[in-house]
Amino acid sequence: MAKKQIRVRCWVEIDGDRFFGPGPAELLRHIEVEGSLSGAAKKMRMSYKKAWDIIEKLNSGSRNKFVQTFKGGNRGGRAEVTPHGKRVVARYQALTDKLNRVLDSNEGLIKLI
Amino acid sequence: MAKKQIRVRCWVEIDGDRFFGPGPAELLRHIEVEGSLSGAAKKMRMSYKKAWDIIEKLNSGSRNKFVQTFKGGNRGGRAEVTPHGKRVVARYQALTDKLNRVLDSNEGLIKLI
Repeated sequence: MAKKQIRVRCWVEIDGDRFFGPGPAELLRHIEVEGSLSGAAKKMRMSYKKAWDIIEKLNSGSRNKFVQTFKGGNRGGRAEVTPHGKRVVARYQALTDKLNRVLDSNEGLIKLI
Repeated sequence: MAKKQIRVRCWVEIDGDRFFGPGPAELLRHIEVEGSLSGAAKKMRMSYKKAWDIIEKLNSGSRNKFVQTFKGGNRGGRAEVTPHGKRVVARYQALTDKLNRVLDSNEGLIKLI
């Protein structure tokens, strides 16, 4: 029996450009746990450069920084998600949960297909 | 002032494979209006081959056909969206509308970013 599933994704665009979505949210969650960009990048099987580019875009695109980096140490030093970054991740997660609850109450589409 | 917007997309997967989503829904809507695959493909700036592949996948992946094609005529003949196809599009559209209403009531994320 084939497994049918409805999935949803949401993201924030600034001037039509993807700014925040599932990728950056996951990266921020990993930075919170790992305490560094290199550790978070590793967990996501992503290059350090790519992780850095994502954070650079987040930090420069909003009024508040999402991640605070600290120089020194090996492999680029420590990184911390700012209170602003944590608030955005929490709000984004809450919205995603809400959207998923809408899907759960719409099994009709699955049954139809 | 930068224009910030939350966007959402939903789709149906069968065994982890994308089966139905915004692309097929739009193609079916165009087929309904145009009455042919070639006309619908043109409206979507998509090759006839690509449109055919999408419909072939829909028609073979579900218990019921989404599109009925009629041989003959020039450029591949007529095509009609079946009652089943129309029901799926309507249900998908209703779900998308519902998800967008959830976004509208969640302006908090936008204001935060």
